[in-house]
Amino acid sequence: MPKMFEFELLHVCRQTGARRGRLHTPNGVIETPVFMPVGTQATVKALEPRDLGENDASMILGNTYHLLLRPGPEVIANAGGLHSFMNWKRPILTDSGGFQVFSLAKMRKLTPDGCWFNSHLDGRRIFLGPRESMEMQRTLGSDIAMAFDECIPWPCDRERAEKSVSITLDWARMSLDAPHAPGQLVFGIVQGGVYADIRRRCAEELVQMDFPGYAIGGVSVGEPEEEMYKAVEASVPFLPETKPRYVMGLGVMTQMAECVARGVDMFDCVLPTRIARHGTAITRHGNVAIKAAKWAKDLGPVEEGCECYCCRNFSRSYVRHLLACDEILGLRLLTIHNVWALNRFMKEMRAAIEDGTFYDWKEQVKKDTKENE
Amino acid sequence: MPKMFEFELLHVCRQTGARRGRLHTPNGVIETPVFMPVGTQATVKALEPRDLGENDASMILGNTYHLLLRPGPEVIANAGGLHSFMNWKRPILTDSGGFQVFSLAKMRKLTPDGCWFNSHLDGRRIFLGPRESMEMQRTLGSDIAMAFDECIPWPCDRERAEKSVSITLDWARMSLDAPHAPGQLVFGIVQGGVYADIRRRCAEELVQMDFPGYAIGGVSVGEPEEEMYKAVEASVPFLPETKPRYVMGLGVMTQMAECVARGVDMFDCVLPTRIARHGTAITRHGNVAIKAAKWAKDLGPVEEGCECYCCRNFSRSYVRHLLACDEILGLRLLTIHNVWALNRFMKEMRAAIEDGTFYDWKEQVKKDTKENE
Repeated sequence: MPKMFEFELLHVCRQTGARRGRLHTPNGVIETPVFMPVGTQATVKALEPRDLGENDASMILGNTYHLLLRPGPEVIANAGGLHSFMNWKRPILTDSGGFQVFSLAKMRKLTPDGCWFNSHLDGRRIFLGPRESMEMQRTLGSDIAMAFDECIPWPCDRERAEKSVSITLDWARMSLDAPHAPGQLVFGIVQGGVYADIRRRCAEELVQMDFPGYAIGGVSVGEPEEEMYKAVEASVPFLPETKPRYVMGLGVMTQMAECVARGVDMFDCVLPTRIARHGTAITRHGNVAIKAAKWAKDLGPVEEGCECYCCRNFSRSYVRHLLACDEILGLRLLTIHNVWALNRFMKEMRAAIEDGTFYDWKEQVKKDTKENE
Repeated sequence: MPKMFEFELLHVCRQTGARRGRLHTPNGVIETPVFMPVGTQATVKALEPRDLGENDASMILGNTYHLLLRPGPEVIANAGGLHSFMNWKRPILTDSGGFQVFSLAKMRKLTPDGCWFNSHLDGRRIFLGPRESMEMQRTLGSDIAMAFDECIPWPCDRERAEKSVSITLDWARMSLDAPHAPGQLVFGIVQGGVYADIRRRCAEELVQMDFPGYAIGGVSVGEPEEEMYKAVEASVPFLPETKPRYVMGLGVMTQMAECVARGVDMFDCVLPTRIARHGTAITRHGNVAIKAAKWAKDLGPVEEGCECYCCRNFSRSYVRHLLACDEILGLRLLTIHNVWALNRFMKEMRAAIEDGTFYDWKEQVKKDTKENE
């Protein structure tokens, strides 16, 4: 099929809103639904590009805020962009830095053009707004850049949510109008907290601006799971069917499946890499604390039947020992496993959408996970 | 050539005492001179077995003291030995734990049968002597086990050195008489500090016991370089030409070359892996602090011309950024490079011995290294 649109819709589930798609980017094609491991500081923590390749990762996320602070735009520009800096040849999505400015940075001062803040590393005073963010994302040369947005906390009152969405819409326009890297796609972000009518307004105004893709932001920020699904349901119906939809910051298997059922195509999260470093393995049947003493002599793999490098080569007994001794290899092996587990999960999900079994598959996933809780 | 002896002497240098040999072990053949990376806690820090394979590592060292404390003999026995526990299929040499008892452990109490000490981890009271050490090394199933010895500090007076060697000789006999794993070779250790006549006595008495190999211990413990070479020179002439000779705890390129010139065949050291974690790269022209600001925009590899995974794929600029951000990948990439650098160095050295250019090569190494100091 010739590439006429960035996003091809291959299959749509008859029982749910689940979609099987294909997203074309300057550095390659992404099969959706997709999970993107997070490479905050120009590396997916504990992994190298070849591990990600082996783990079937097709796209990773880079954090504009972190990369702006370290190594900074000059070093990235000098290397010819983020892809060549970190030697990652497949697509990269960069966030806008908005989320970090409103969660990590101190002493914020909002202006119509962006936000003054103190770096969480050294207190340096920095200004980041849609123009600065898009300029940095242009330097990074990501395949998908995100519009700069204000991410409100949960809970948040209606008035604040309304004001914030107005700012986010202004910034979305400014982000779209700013110069971009060649071929770089820019996604708009639907905000609005738990207020369905505000999310609808935000979605509709963003769609007027005609972005090549849309994210749903401000979810998975501490709200109950049901609120999260409501926020997704309040946004998706007002987004065009022909464009990819991305829920930011989500990486729990059952939650991703539920969001896909509601028409979402893309996800990212630090979860698989972060909990690996705390000794927790993600499996198809729930999370397993490999550090637990009960695994001390267990010669089985971290997850039965898993084909990842960790599970093919090492026992729970060994991985547990490494974790107990704070050995880097322990963190690495679990990270390899967890990223593999999520990518395999998405592959299963895509196959289920294709052969019309998605709904049953999703219900089975829920059951499997509950068994172990 | 049929395997008649464990050690084959292939070439001997005409100008120096350098030897090119081949050591047969239950898990494979080692080309000597050889450098062994150290895998203290059942992992060469930051590396996995496939990295070591790729780095051409033929044999690694495991630390009996550390493995006795964690995960302990039961867990290792349950896995069927250290090879299968850590999934390393090539040879392993285990030290006896003597060095750690006398350097790491607290509240030591010496007896004729070994040493009581408090674990440096949790203060637990433990007894380790030749019988216990050999039993643990039998459980580990290493290809080469080391006799349990007393390692004296530097400086050390003559009387203490004499007494210590008497103990070490008693323990060497007990180590040799203890049960071993099938095919496991046991090496004796020459001690004696800086006293040439004591070292000679120790070497001669060990040779009477007829070990399949001999180590020179108690060097590189803080003494001046010249003292170290003297200790080697005081030991080697009294060891049989037909057996491998191993200087423990040494991993500096120029020092290994000097020891090989004096007839040494084997080395181990934590140096390449430890300094990697401090941001230092080992190169053929001396050490390089990759963390230094001057490399921030340097797009060259860590070492020009190096074929390791790190140098083939990443720039100094990138590795420096990773180190600055305390990213695991930075430690890993430099560890991969450093182990590669030492193994490549030994390969060069072996080739130089084979084609009769060892002396000139060694002098060139000294010059190259001095240039950068």
